[in-house]
This record gives sequence, C-alpha cells and structure tokens, in this order.
Amino acid sequence: MAAKSLLSGTPGVINIGLRGFAADLAARGVPVAQVDWRPPRPGRERTGELLAWLGRHEARIARANAEGLRRMLGANPVLVDVQPAGKVISGLGDRVLLHAGPPLEWRRMCGPMQGAVAGAIVFEGWAPDLKRAAKLAAGGAIRFRPNHRYGAVGPMTGITTRSMPVMVVENRARGIHAGNRSYCMINEGLGKVMRFGANDAEVLARLAWLRDDFGPLLGAALRAAGGLELTPLIARGLAMGDEMHQRNVACSALVLRALAPHFARAAGDAGDLARSLAFIAGNEQFFLNIGMAMGKAMMDPLSGPHNGIEACSLVSAMSRNGTDFGIRLSATGDAWFTAPVEMPQGLYFPGYGERDANPDMGDSAIMETVGLGAFAMASAPAVMGFVGAGRASDALAFTRAMGELTAGRNPKWTIPALDGEGVPAGIDVRKVAATGVQPAINTGIAHRKPGVGQVGAGVARAPLACFDQALEAFAASLK
Amino acid sequence: MAAKSLLSGTPGVINIGLRGFAADLAARGVPVAQVDWRPPRPGRERTGELLAWLGRHEARIARANAEGLRRMLGANPVLVDVQPAGKVISGLGDRVLLHAGPPLEWRRMCGPMQGAVAGAIVFEGWAPDLKRAAKLAAGGAIRFRPNHRYGAVGPMTGITTRSMPVMVVENRARGIHAGNRSYCMINEGLGKVMRFGANDAEVLARLAWLRDDFGPLLGAALRAAGGLELTPLIARGLAMGDEMHQRNVACSALVLRALAPHFARAAGDAGDLARSLAFIAGNEQFFLNIGMAMGKAMMDPLSGPHNGIEACSLVSAMSRNGTDFGIRLSATGDAWFTAPVEMPQGLYFPGYGERDANPDMGDSAIMETVGLGAFAMASAPAVMGFVGAGRASDALAFTRAMGELTAGRNPKWTIPALDGEGVPAGIDVRKVAATGVQPAINTGIAHRKPGVGQVGAGVARAPLACFDQALEAFAASLK
Repeated sequence: MAAKSLLSGTPGVINIGLRGFAADLAARGVPVAQVDWRPPRPGRERTGELLAWLGRHEARIARANAEGLRRMLGANPVLVDVQPAGKVISGLGDRVLLHAGPPLEWRRMCGPMQGAVAGAIVFEGWAPDLKRAAKLAAGGAIRFRPNHRYGAVGPMTGITTRSMPVMVVENRARGIHAGNRSYCMINEGLGKVMRFGANDAEVLARLAWLRDDFGPLLGAALRAAGGLELTPLIARGLAMGDEMHQRNVACSALVLRALAPHFARAAGDAGDLARSLAFIAGNEQFFLNIGMAMGKAMMDPLSGPHNGIEACSLVSAMSRNGTDFGIRLSATGDAWFTAPVEMPQGLYFPGYGERDANPDMGDSAIMETVGLGAFAMASAPAVMGFVGAGRASDALAFTRAMGELTAGRNPKWTIPALDGEGVPAGIDVRKVAATGVQPAINTGIAHRKPGVGQVGAGVARAPLACFDQALEAFAASLK
Repeated sequence: MAAKSLLSGTPGVINIGLRGFAADLAARGVPVAQVDWRPPRPGRERTGELLAWLGRHEARIARANAEGLRRMLGANPVLVDVQPAGKVISGLGDRVLLHAGPPLEWRRMCGPMQGAVAGAIVFEGWAPDLKRAAKLAAGGAIRFRPNHRYGAVGPMTGITTRSMPVMVVENRARGIHAGNRSYCMINEGLGKVMRFGANDAEVLARLAWLRDDFGPLLGAALRAAGGLELTPLIARGLAMGDEMHQRNVACSALVLRALAPHFARAAGDAGDLARSLAFIAGNEQFFLNIGMAMGKAMMDPLSGPHNGIEACSLVSAMSRNGTDFGIRLSATGDAWFTAPVEMPQGLYFPGYGERDANPDMGDSAIMETVGLGAFAMASAPAVMGFVGAGRASDALAFTRAMGELTAGRNPKWTIPALDGEGVPAGIDVRKVAATGVQPAINTGIAHRKPGVGQVGAGVARAPLACFDQALEAFAASLK
C-alpha cells in the first residue's frame, strides 16, 4: 500500500477492456480512464477476418439491428388464455411430439428427455405403458419436432403434446410484425415432474389435473381479467429480486395477486378453488413458463423464415435439448447453429454431485435471449449464491459483463440497483464472437437418469462454436 | 488525478470516522486503514460528560443490551387473528380513543389527528355527526391514550377504538418475556382514509366493511392457517425489494399468497371472496400494519414498566403524534422523551408541496425501531428515489450509516446486496447522542388539513433532543 502517494493526490483508475468496470467505478465517483482493448481469441483468426469483412457492412447491419430491437422491445406480450396444445398449435396432431432445443431424434436423446417422451406417449394414450412407449418412439412412429418451430417453448425436456394445457401469450403490439401468439405448458411444480424426465403415475395424474381442472380454471380467470400484461409485471419483478429464470418468486406471487379475484369468481367449488390457489402459491417457479412464452412472443417478430430480418445479427433463440446447444439468428431464419451442450457449473442439492448431472437442457434460455435470467443478475443478488456464481454483491458486474454482448438496453425493464439502467437486450453474434465471452444462462440441473428430477442449479454457458458457425452463416447471408 | 503515483503502487484508503465506509471498501478488496474519530457535537459538552460517566458502567450496560437484543431478536411474532379492538385490548372501553405517538390532548392535536378523532367518534356512535364529535372531544368527554401503552400501534393518526377490527400478533417465542400480543388496525388502502385524517361517509363505510366482512374473513383464514409466521416472511421481503415501511409490495403479495387458499375455504360467497382478495391485491401497503403489530410484539418484551430492562440503553419505541416526536428506552420503562416533530424531507405528489405537508406522524416508526424501514434501505433501492433520499445505488450507504447507531445486527433478516449482512438492530441511545446522527424514518406525508390524505413520501428524522433527554434519564436510572 502506497499510503504516502495516495495521500498526495486523488485516487484514480485506468480501466483496460470491459467498459462495465469503468462505469462501476465512475458511478462511485472514482476518476477513471477507459482503454479499449480486447485479448485476441487464440486460434480464431477466421473470426477476425469475418468481423473485419462485416465492418464494411456496418451501417446496414446497424439499421437491421435497430429494426430487430424495435420489434423485440416494442412487443406487448399479454397472457390471455389456456387451451389444449393441439387446439391452438397448428400441426400438433396425433403422434407429434414437441421437445426443447434444436431438432433431435430419439437415439440421440439424453435419459431425462427419453423418460419424458415415454411419459408423454402414455399420457396421450399412444402406448399403454412406458416400456411400449419407448419402443414406439425408438421405432420411428413418433414425429419429434422442436418447440421453437411451432411457436412454443418448454423448460428442461420441454415436452409438448396435443392434450397438454398450454398458456397462450399474445403480442398485442400494433403493426405488421405483431399479433403473434406463443405457447408454453403450465409449470408442474418441483420434485418429480415431466420436465425433469419423470414419468410415473403421480406425474401423469398431475398432468391430468392440470389438463382437466387447473388449466381450464386458469384460462377462465385470464379471460375474465381480459389478459395479464407481462411487460409491466416483469418490470415489477426486476425491482423485487427476480431475474425470471432461476428466481420467479415475485412474479409468481404477482400473478396470483392479479388473478385471485378472478379465480374466486370463475371457480365452481371452494375446494377446487383452494387447491388451485394453493398450487400457484406452492410453486415459486410458476411464472417461469409464462415468462418463457412471453420471451418467445417477443422474439418471434424477428425470427424464422417469415420474420427474420436480412442483415440483422441479433440472436433470435438460444436453446438446448440435453444433447446439443443451438442458436438461431434473425438474419438466417430457421437455421440452427449447434454444438455439444456443456455441463452447467453450479451447486448441488445435498447427496448429489457432478456425476449425477445431466448436460444443459431446455428452451428456458429464451429468458436470457430477451435480457433476463443471467443477463438480469443485478436484480437478483440472492441468485448468485444459489447458482454458485459468486458473492451477491458481484451480481452487478455479472449483468455488466453480459451487457458487453448486446446491441442495447431495454428501457422498460430497469434495474434499481443499477440506478435504473435497463437490462441488456439483443445478443449480437458479432460481439460474442469478438469477445469470446460466452452468454451465461441461469439454469436448473436435472439428474441424468429419467424420473429423479432436479439435483442442483447453476450457470450454463452457450458454446462459442455455435456463435462461430452463426457468424460464418451471417457473413454468407450478406454476400 | 495523480496517475503516475497511482500506477506505482496498489491503491489504498485511510478511512476516518464511520466504519461503514471502510467495510464497503474492504469488501471490494481495497486496502483500508480505519481511524476512529468523531467530530464533537457543538454545544453538547453535557453529552460528552454523560457518555464518559456511562463508560464506567460499560460492562453492565453491555450485559443489559445483550439481554435486550436477545428478547427482541428471539421473538417469534405470528399473525394469528383479527378481533374487535375492544374485545382484545384490555381497557379499551366506551369513549376511550387510542392514537399514535406519545400522549396528547385534543387542543394540541394537528388537523389530520383531530379529523380522524372526529371520524372515529361518529363511527363508534358516540356523536351523531362530525361537528358534535369535535365538540365532544374538545369538551373532555373522550379519554385520549397512546396506542403504545395498550399493546397497540397505528400508522399516521393511528386511531384505534373499540369496534375497529385489529390484527393480532402473538410472540410465540418461549420464555418468561414472551407470549405477549400486539394489535394494529387493518390497513384501509390509499386515498381518503382515516389514518390520513379523512372522515367522511366513504371512509366510515369502508371501516364498517372492514369490521363486518373483511376483518372476520381475514380472522377466519388466519385461524384456519394456524397463524402466519412473520420472521421468515420479512426475510423473504428483504430479498424482494421491501423495507417494510415505505414499500410493502412483496410482503403484501406473500400474505395474499399464503392466505388465499384459506380465504377460499372460509368465504361463504364468491362475490364477497373476490372483493376481499381484490382488496388485499389492490393495496401494496396492506402489510405495513401487520409489520407494525409485529414490531410492537418484538419490542414489548423489553419495554414498559414490567419488561423494561435495568441498564439497557436500547430504544424500545420511536413514535410521533403529528405534534411531538417521542422515544422510550428499555431502562426507563413508560417514560416518553419528547420534542417537537420535524417536517419530513421528501417528494410530493403532483400539485402538492411543503406548504401542504403535515409534520411527521404515526406509530409506524416501530419499523425503524426493529431495524426495518430506513434502516433496511439497502434492501429497497427503489425506495431511495420515491422518498427523494438520493440515488438507488446509495441505498447500501444509507443502511450502513444507520448501522452506526445500533447495538447489533439481526441474523434472521439479511440483505442480499450486502452479502447477507443482517439489518441494523437495537438503536443505542448512547450512539445516537454521541454521533449526532439522527435515526431516519421512511414515511408517508399527510396533508395538513383533515380529509385530504397522503400528499407525498419522504424521510423524517428523529429529533436529537429526544435522545439527549433520554440519555440524561438513562444515566439517572443507573445511579
């Protein structure tokens, strides 16, 4: 410690690299000089060449990205209804099974995914038991499709079949790229649940209750309420310690608060009503699936073959199926850029460890895609410890680091602890490829064997190989 | 900026005075040396003499304060019931009227207090209209008593009369100084309400509904639930952006979440049920009155003539009646040390300003007395702007400054953004007198005319004169 030299002048700092640290210091009144510098990514000369070439199209890309952000941040997602998936999702018929992540066939599915598939087949009555369900799936009688292709999303295994009750989020923004609807199954709660690959009688009985009792009541309450606007709800949640992926305590309680009076009027029986209210009250991740449908509704206006924006370098989806991690770009429509999923780094529940963990899985990375989850860590310091990412007070730095990867900030979703700065919004494939900073995703960790359930929570990282491929395809799309 | 000298050594800091700043820097890895030093309080030589004399009793006071903290932090406050005030508060009979703050007669009451008194008199049927109610009160026919003396508390005017429905909090800790019960009226919501001095037909009709419909239903739900433990609820709220005085969004939603199923089973009619659930859902300060009863239940084991602890220098109550600010100490039992209330410093709703403001009022400073409210500002950065106290990111420093005034921290109520540090607990009259730092109180600002309601929110400060008097009496109590 140079006490003498310190006392002879005002302390100051020179910051090299990530701007977030400089902003942090400047906010505390420390004089700071910023030096832009990035370490070269070893072995990625090709990335440098592509980025240099893309630099010649900077204005065009910037315009496209502004349009992408406009559609994404201009969305007005409203939770409007609950309906059987087969009724509202076009093409979801007999023996069609939607799953999380990029496309995947039965033989490459991990244990929990196969377990959930077998359970869903029995639930739909396509096979009388799990054994014959697995045989049916292996024999090619089931068509496996990614949720993302059907306007749907699902956490972990993300299985969606036609009789399951899905929540419907409608994008009530006006304009040519609005009015779209997205879908997500109702969150089943913790413990033995299909999203973690469980498939026994208890799991199927709960699904049947969701289909026959809870789902219709929730749908009636939503219709009576005229829908539930999600953008302001998320804004409240960000001021209440949620980041909407690993932690949904506040938003789940706010949904219950908003809908309880409508539940009361719509319910036929006090016992059924009490059970339904207790179901929401007992599941602090209840909101996750609503948030996911919201995220999908925000991103679809700039995604896929119809809405993809030429020259837009924003990531329109990140998702994992337990085997592959895949991303899509706005500019490249339906194409998936995939790489093997990594293992989440995190903390395990007592009695479990890394040997038990299934690789990263689920469509829930849509939350990070829209700037929530790990990108909004600054709102949820309590999550830092839960996922083993560090000290609570480091949550601000976590969000700032993710902010280096995005095209903008979301002015509607601000973080009090960052003095009202918006969450980072719109991951730019160029920035990920250039920095080599992997987008972080807050996630639950499933047991690798089907039927066991969640064994921990942590932070997963999107593999850089996905972004390297995507950058290549993006450059090719401009030629 | 001395860039050269900075680059030649590791930055370091010498901190003089308040230790909180040193802790903040040390937590960020900055080498820091602490120098204890306090500026003398001008004109308070007497304080220095008393503190020096008290220093000779340090061990005895420390033991007494440890016992005080043990009773306070060992409390297990549980919201158990709703009952008519006259049924559960001993001595609250005909023409007895409890009010906020230290003792006060009619002629010294501020406008909103007189307005609320008149309204309560009509509500109880002691006079047929407001004019005759005021005449009755002025004529000495009403006995005015402080809530605090009767195990009760009330926000703002804090009027409590026998037929009003009070929520009952029971201290379920075991031991000789436990089992006590505290009481607080149900929060009426915003707008024209009796706690801000309103008293027209709309206000009295709402009170009648609370008495006849909502209160009994809430009581039935609580009894069916077996009570609601408040210590863990507050712990959740602190991780969700509440400081439980100015902001009760999370705790109000969590109470609704916990009780909604019991409401559903206890209600006789779907319409009544829906109205009751909507009443809680529509009032984000609903929890405040529950929190206040909790605070009272935590402090009573070390308060008053029966439970006051000899040689304990902890503040057992801070409260204001709109005219006087008063504090009580554990060691001095029922004695109030009063001084004129100050004006809160804050922000006004559109169309209002300082000229409209009533001076500081209410028993709600019990929240700060137990370490919440302004003392827990670090949990609620969003409140900083609402009360005009500064930038959201300064909330941590606010809590650290209040931490200089307390005997300890509450390990059950931790703040994620402070890496799990507990809220400051147990205001020590010696520390306030020594530092001259006035305890801060987050508060609503009432219009000075009765019946208008809330016009702003801000931070009030406890007058130092209360603490100077209390210190004198404390020293006398030791002789």
